[in-house]
Amino acid sequence: MQAHLYPSTVYLSAPEMIRLVRRKGLSDCIAGVADRIEREFLRWNEFDKSARLASHSDVGVIELMPIADAELFAFKYVNGHPSNHRHGLPTVMAFGVLADVRTGAPRFLSELTLTTAIRTAAMSAVAARELARPGSRSMALIGNGAQGEFQALAFRDLVGIRELRLFDTDLAASAKLAANLDGQGFEIRICATTAEAVRGADIVTTATADKTSAAILTPGMIEPGMHINAVGGDCPGKTELHRGVLERASVFVEFEPQSRIEGEIQQMPLDFAVTEFWQVLAGHRPGRVDAAEVTVFDSVGFALEDFAALAYMRETAEALGLGEILDLMPETADPKNLFGVLRVKNDSEEAREITVAALH
Amino acid sequence: MQAHLYPSTVYLSAPEMIRLVRRKGLSDCIAGVADRIEREFLRWNEFDKSARLASHSDVGVIELMPIADAELFAFKYVNGHPSNHRHGLPTVMAFGVLADVRTGAPRFLSELTLTTAIRTAAMSAVAARELARPGSRSMALIGNGAQGEFQALAFRDLVGIRELRLFDTDLAASAKLAANLDGQGFEIRICATTAEAVRGADIVTTATADKTSAAILTPGMIEPGMHINAVGGDCPGKTELHRGVLERASVFVEFEPQSRIEGEIQQMPLDFAVTEFWQVLAGHRPGRVDAAEVTVFDSVGFALEDFAALAYMRETAEALGLGEILDLMPETADPKNLFGVLRVKNDSEEAREITVAALH
Repeated sequence: MQAHLYPSTVYLSAPEMIRLVRRKGLSDCIAGVADRIEREFLRWNEFDKSARLASHSDVGVIELMPIADAELFAFKYVNGHPSNHRHGLPTVMAFGVLADVRTGAPRFLSELTLTTAIRTAAMSAVAARELARPGSRSMALIGNGAQGEFQALAFRDLVGIRELRLFDTDLAASAKLAANLDGQGFEIRICATTAEAVRGADIVTTATADKTSAAILTPGMIEPGMHINAVGGDCPGKTELHRGVLERASVFVEFEPQSRIEGEIQQMPLDFAVTEFWQVLAGHRPGRVDAAEVTVFDSVGFALEDFAALAYMRETAEALGLGEILDLMPETADPKNLFGVLRVKNDSEEAREITVAALH
Repeated sequence: MQAHLYPSTVYLSAPEMIRLVRRKGLSDCIAGVADRIEREFLRWNEFDKSARLASHSDVGVIELMPIADAELFAFKYVNGHPSNHRHGLPTVMAFGVLADVRTGAPRFLSELTLTTAIRTAAMSAVAARELARPGSRSMALIGNGAQGEFQALAFRDLVGIRELRLFDTDLAASAKLAANLDGQGFEIRICATTAEAVRGADIVTTATADKTSAAILTPGMIEPGMHINAVGGDCPGKTELHRGVLERASVFVEFEPQSRIEGEIQQMPLDFAVTEFWQVLAGHRPGRVDAAEVTVFDSVGFALEDFAALAYMRETAEALGLGEILDLMPETADPKNLFGVLRVKNDSEEAREITVAALH
């Protein structure tokens, strides 16, 4: 084992993350991330926040999502490419880093594809716990892709959802979701239309992927008291709700400056009233005020959720002894002598290289 | 060897990068990155550019620097912590990624601490080749930290510098630099003051680290025809040149919107005239117009330089067979079935895990 003069970077690969979630259990991970999200959202004003930096192309978007408190800087790299399934790739892929604010040294590098699905579902459920009618039991799930199972399980565990109505333009996706959720305590119905799935549901979750201004939910579908968890509309030109749905609802967002650009509310005038969700959690602003109110959580995904997820995964990996060490930074005896790493080649290093070569 | 359904991520660690630079030779790397920087700067309008996203704290800054063309998205993570040497850490540490714009998949993850020193020196020399007086032979190097050797060698190879005058408030840093450059074809003098080092020099390079508004160079030190390569002033509140130096010079910058925030020109009114350097390379705007003109390259470091450096390092690693494969993304047979990675555990995977366990 090589001696590390530097704070090392712990690396959690995708296979290691899968191992972590299997060992810990998916329900525990969702609950753990949800707890962490709540804790971090209650510290809202301690964070240096900014809207994410997005690079758009014809076929998708690549985003960097940074955030920091006094101790830790976090960022996520994430893409959104609705046509990726044609290349056998997921729509959304991600990884992220936690670094020390005091020194700038990166301490934790992790896959975040699986983790993003967990944290998005956890965030949705944390919001619904505050905003949906108490006793909500049924949820319509519109869009049955990679997010579906995670949303269903988070809402089962944290909100009490037991009935699911599934709709997707790709029937195979609904069948896949129903099969994966078999034996998980749900009553499941695959529906022929969005309207059929939505009718009578306590909660409606939209998680569709198309990068277009869609109107998956129209005003005629909305019933008094519904909570709408709008997950899929998350970049400019990509929405899921008809503006009439927003007009008759109380709308909650994560970080208003980012949501004005990316959220469902990009369709609305700049003075359209919204509430940042942390204000509800903190008791500064009301959430749902009566049983007939229609509430919308206009979720686009905010860096603070990834900060929370990274922190949870780092702690859990450490507790379970998972992860590897990455030599991201060169070791120098004298930090002002970076050039020295190129010149000095001591005997033990030569010896190590020879040993490694001989083993292969 | 595991089969990869996904485009894999090639990882170049710091030890692998050191190996790459040793094998290729530092001079070749500097020249290769300089060529690549020129080529990319000549494609300026093909890039989606933005000022970097900086997160400031009392002790330093952490930045994300993204850029993309139609094929590749690149970003660099980099910090700047002037007091890091007290923790035995470099002032600047960095890593970066190249990703496919078409799918969003990250394809190359690399250390960029060593690489940043190489690309910064290459950029400085490319600019000086256009902006310094032809036949320049002497350079003052103010600030003799981690950048020093790289600047000296880049200016030797690309500009023809043969005489160096060194000054640093830390005499040990100058001594280290002189020792490292011994036998590299320079006449070297360690000076007692900045003024002494600057006097009579063709080129003055400032590469100091303090996060303060300093006036390392004052108008009285500046002689007709000098080229000033200002490398160290690179974030708000961190400058090296007295404003009087800028007032009497022609000032060239990398990307004006970023330099207005971070460069020496943050001291100047918004209508203070500057030229983006790519315009000089492309022949759209003049560089130096006569032998008496004072030119300043107000360098802060721009994402396009890292794009160029990442592309060069990726190609070179491939040619030399360096780098490892990183499993950053989970493999799924069906991209809509991310949940499946948690449930399906086929026999061969079980077998592989058992085999691995038995070997340890």
